[in-house]
Amino acid sequence: MARERLVVVGGDAAGMSAAANARRRRPAADLAIDVYEQGPHASYAACGIPYYIGGLVPSEQRLIARRVEQFEAEGIGVHLRHQVEGIDPAQRRVLVKPLDGGEARWEPYDHLLLATGSMPVRPQVPGIDARGVFGLNTLESGIAVHRFLEEERPRRAVIVGGGYIGLEMAEALIMRGLQVALVEKEEQVMLTLDADMAAPIARRLEELGVELRLGEALTAFETADGRLRAVVTEKGTISCDMAVLGLGVRPRSELAREAGIPLGVRGAVVVNERMQTEVPGIWAAGDCAQTFHLVSRRPFWVALGTVANKQGRVAGINLGGGYATFPGVVGTAITKVCELEIARTGLQEREIAALGWESVVVRIEAPTRAHYYPDAGRATVKLLAERGSGRLLGGQIVGTDGAGKRIDVVATALHAGLTVEEFLHLDLAYAPPFSPVWDPLLVAARQLAGSL
Amino acid sequence: MARERLVVVGGDAAGMSAAANARRRRPAADLAIDVYEQGPHASYAACGIPYYIGGLVPSEQRLIARRVEQFEAEGIGVHLRHQVEGIDPAQRRVLVKPLDGGEARWEPYDHLLLATGSMPVRPQVPGIDARGVFGLNTLESGIAVHRFLEEERPRRAVIVGGGYIGLEMAEALIMRGLQVALVEKEEQVMLTLDADMAAPIARRLEELGVELRLGEALTAFETADGRLRAVVTEKGTISCDMAVLGLGVRPRSELAREAGIPLGVRGAVVVNERMQTEVPGIWAAGDCAQTFHLVSRRPFWVALGTVANKQGRVAGINLGGGYATFPGVVGTAITKVCELEIARTGLQEREIAALGWESVVVRIEAPTRAHYYPDAGRATVKLLAERGSGRLLGGQIVGTDGAGKRIDVVATALHAGLTVEEFLHLDLAYAPPFSPVWDPLLVAARQLAGSL
Repeated sequence: MARERLVVVGGDAAGMSAAANARRRRPAADLAIDVYEQGPHASYAACGIPYYIGGLVPSEQRLIARRVEQFEAEGIGVHLRHQVEGIDPAQRRVLVKPLDGGEARWEPYDHLLLATGSMPVRPQVPGIDARGVFGLNTLESGIAVHRFLEEERPRRAVIVGGGYIGLEMAEALIMRGLQVALVEKEEQVMLTLDADMAAPIARRLEELGVELRLGEALTAFETADGRLRAVVTEKGTISCDMAVLGLGVRPRSELAREAGIPLGVRGAVVVNERMQTEVPGIWAAGDCAQTFHLVSRRPFWVALGTVANKQGRVAGINLGGGYATFPGVVGTAITKVCELEIARTGLQEREIAALGWESVVVRIEAPTRAHYYPDAGRATVKLLAERGSGRLLGGQIVGTDGAGKRIDVVATALHAGLTVEEFLHLDLAYAPPFSPVWDPLLVAARQLAGSL
Repeated sequence: MARERLVVVGGDAAGMSAAANARRRRPAADLAIDVYEQGPHASYAACGIPYYIGGLVPSEQRLIARRVEQFEAEGIGVHLRHQVEGIDPAQRRVLVKPLDGGEARWEPYDHLLLATGSMPVRPQVPGIDARGVFGLNTLESGIAVHRFLEEERPRRAVIVGGGYIGLEMAEALIMRGLQVALVEKEEQVMLTLDADMAAPIARRLEELGVELRLGEALTAFETADGRLRAVVTEKGTISCDMAVLGLGVRPRSELAREAGIPLGVRGAVVVNERMQTEVPGIWAAGDCAQTFHLVSRRPFWVALGTVANKQGRVAGINLGGGYATFPGVVGTAITKVCELEIARTGLQEREIAALGWESVVVRIEAPTRAHYYPDAGRATVKLLAERGSGRLLGGQIVGTDGAGKRIDVVATALHAGLTVEEFLHLDLAYAPPFSPVWDPLLVAARQLAGSL
């Protein structure tokens, strides 16, 4: 019998990272660890689902990062298809329901980690439950889309939502040979980019054959015999055989709310830098937890595997008796549409205005390699800085051939609070096959420094 | 007649950047600008020479960044094939010799910028002046190698020196179908990397067919009728039709020394952050000038186009009546051998030991994309941190598929003085086509944080 018991709710990135890190510091005799996961897999790569659907990843098995047996071998009990239905913080116990049969039972804990993740926004419109309408929240939902494509051979698909999942699914379905329309209620795709940076992405989608319908909100799914026949918007009807929802996600925090644990931004669980909630003995990490934005200096919420892994690690170190803190994020994200790389970090114009701050911005275009080196790509770089202080506030990149990952330099500068003048002098790597002598980032900074 | 006159010695990156920036701030009526350049070109891309020789760049014309006419149109006098032979700081004048004939004459200045660049180290061994032995210091020397390859069709080449130019020329000559041997007096190639990181580069060179002769110092060139026949080292004789020197460069600072301007590291001209030398009215920028290492916090010298451009810009802004400073460098560099990308920044083990500091190091290998995404490359990443403080001191990367440019994140972190723990939490861009969920840099940092 172990001295203490850690119960983890949710067996994906944050939960399993925490379990593994806690185990590394405390042996099984000291800390029993039990993970309850409602799905049939532990720790899979949700971000890989569009590439599996598109055919780039040959089998869903490739998306499973680690198997239950590996965790069990480390003395971590992983209970798949077990749903935690309630928390009793006063008596430090959780109500666990085995989904494959059997009664719900109370399980005691000394430490509880909520790693319940996020769930896709699902609009309550007519026809939402029709066959052929898919959300993408779990590996199983990805497998369901894959099977539908194989078995039903749909020809026309509508993507609802022009964000990351929407764009990645548009690419995937185009690669599978479908006709694709994309419906987005705003006047641009990729709302996390400014409109001027999103415009070339829309053009590229249209070149690829995607029928873009911007400024059209979904109102219903038209069905026949329980099967999807068309997507209906305020402006028209688009007949199709399948639809994929890409309307974003929200924290899965009902369990926490019902237990009286304070929630913050977008309903995410409020935690401190060590990942402790405001209720003693209860921790939270990953998509269900709130975090901090290091540029806006405000509480923030984001659902990303990288953040979940880091927060899980920090929670695990603390639960293992160590000391670690997670300082926050700067809002970095990247994706691609075929060869077009799309990346952003920090604050965009809309966010800066909402804070009441004033920004100075620049947008430049530059090659990704020396002008004389063959096959150089192009990068459009936008940088945003605070008027007055000159502090860098954000960056956006759209381009080809290594343009996108350059955003990491801006992200690092945002972590460090660099000014544009400091950024301009960064000693970035240069050789003709890798960069022009002025890297596109520094071309932008040089011009921005001139306007400050 | 302009109110003041700026004379620039050297018409490449630093000199022409300075001239252009000064002109932008002061019209011709206020400041006359005259550039004296001993060669026949202004502002060419020296770093592109190996790729021109290798056949990737079709014409040397592509390497010329801007033409004299463009500068003249901006009211910048560019005098090609004019050598400055002396400086008279007391009377503020320089002695200019037209190389195509005519007497040397004294030209007055109010401000003088030395942008004389660097020159390759040329060992005083027998046969150094033989036909077939090439240094690579100017565009003309690159053209000479190119012409020799076209006209004489050499079959066997020896590269002397295993640094950046040595590796780039080895790749270029292999691409041209030559048999290539590389002689390096140390026991490893790429001395700016630690030995453990240089080892896989040596293996790759051998796979490509380069005969590597490490730990062999050049002693002579064997000649017949004034033509190269063989390279002779302490350990043997390598018969060949051509040899290329890649033994590094040194600052071209004789003019400054003779004028009594203080020199520093490696004989580079000492300047402050505004690029002023210690003699009133005289400035220096680019390869001939000393700089500052932001990690070692010591004076430093490096010859790089990026630094030259930035220093030229800073000098030009100051000469134009503005205010700008160049804070220094962190020692970033990158190159490649075929698909193998090689990058470094900050201090390596040897440099840290020489400072009397103690480091903790880690070396990891990780994929460059999600493990399930097709065609992921591999990156070997080494990070070095200061024992005690945990401050990041340097990084080295050898790998494929976007591994190399990741060094920019480390360089940015070094500028900002981040600790390993801070680095570990960087919000780097993640999506399966771009990175695993833990970027190789963060895998390294996570492991290093564990050892600190």
